[in-house]
Amino acid sequence: MARMTQGPFLLDARLAADTVPVCDWPLCSVLLMNDSRYPWLILVPRSAGASEIFDLAPAERQTLWQEVSRAAERLKAITACRKINVGALGNVVAQLHVHVVAREAGDFAGNGPVWGQGAAVPYADAAREHLLQRLRAELQRGVV
Amino acid sequence: MARMTQGPFLLDARLAADTVPVCDWPLCSVLLMNDSRYPWLILVPRSAGASEIFDLAPAERQTLWQEVSRAAERLKAITACRKINVGALGNVVAQLHVHVVAREAGDFAGNGPVWGQGAAVPYADAAREHLLQRLRAELQRGVV
Repeated sequence: MARMTQGPFLLDARLAADTVPVCDWPLCSVLLMNDSRYPWLILVPRSAGASEIFDLAPAERQTLWQEVSRAAERLKAITACRKINVGALGNVVAQLHVHVVAREAGDFAGNGPVWGQGAAVPYADAAREHLLQRLRAELQRGVV
Repeated sequence: MARMTQGPFLLDARLAADTVPVCDWPLCSVLLMNDSRYPWLILVPRSAGASEIFDLAPAERQTLWQEVSRAAERLKAITACRKINVGALGNVVAQLHVHVVAREAGDFAGNGPVWGQGAAVPYADAAREHLLQRLRAELQRGVV
């Protein structure tokens, strides 16, 4: 898909509706999926018009990868999960976004992928705020 | 998960059974999933013991990302598909591997992910050899 860079970056409406903002890193906005079944981050490069990873300029690609690796490593440390799943699919939402999901052996999707499995279970307000506070402290640490 | 580097790299037995080798890039072995429903590459870093992307050394992570981006861009060019899906899940096979899948609007999994959707449909011999020839020509071009 050709890159269509026009105007400022605007977060896709569906991503905005399904998530809450955690923090902004140099390239990506870090979002928390409002689905209490899994600790689930979504990284969205603030690069207007990108849909595929190769739509990004080489320097942006490198930063994206660093930020995805950092999100994966810190989410693993925060949750002590069994496995991190990383995915850039974009079958539904065209705006480039990367999922970083903490998986447990007994979670809703079992050994399968999280996408398209049942309906999201939104966090209770207090649980969401507690997790957001923890995520912000850990994800913003040392990032300039 | 701590990195467990012991001995030489050995391709996971399930990955070996489900795929055919395409070519070796500097870091990754490039495999073709033997599932004719989707043009589907799997990149496996030849780095013993890695399970998460952050198990790789920083230089390897950067090379992995370059190779994943290259695979995505070339598979898109070869197939003229609607969207590339990239995923590093590892819920079943622990050995670090990255899926790069060409998706079409009307394909078997529709708007969903390819993982865990029905059974693979192996290629007929002639079709597989034809695709492998094309992939090898395109994926090896200019890679040293």
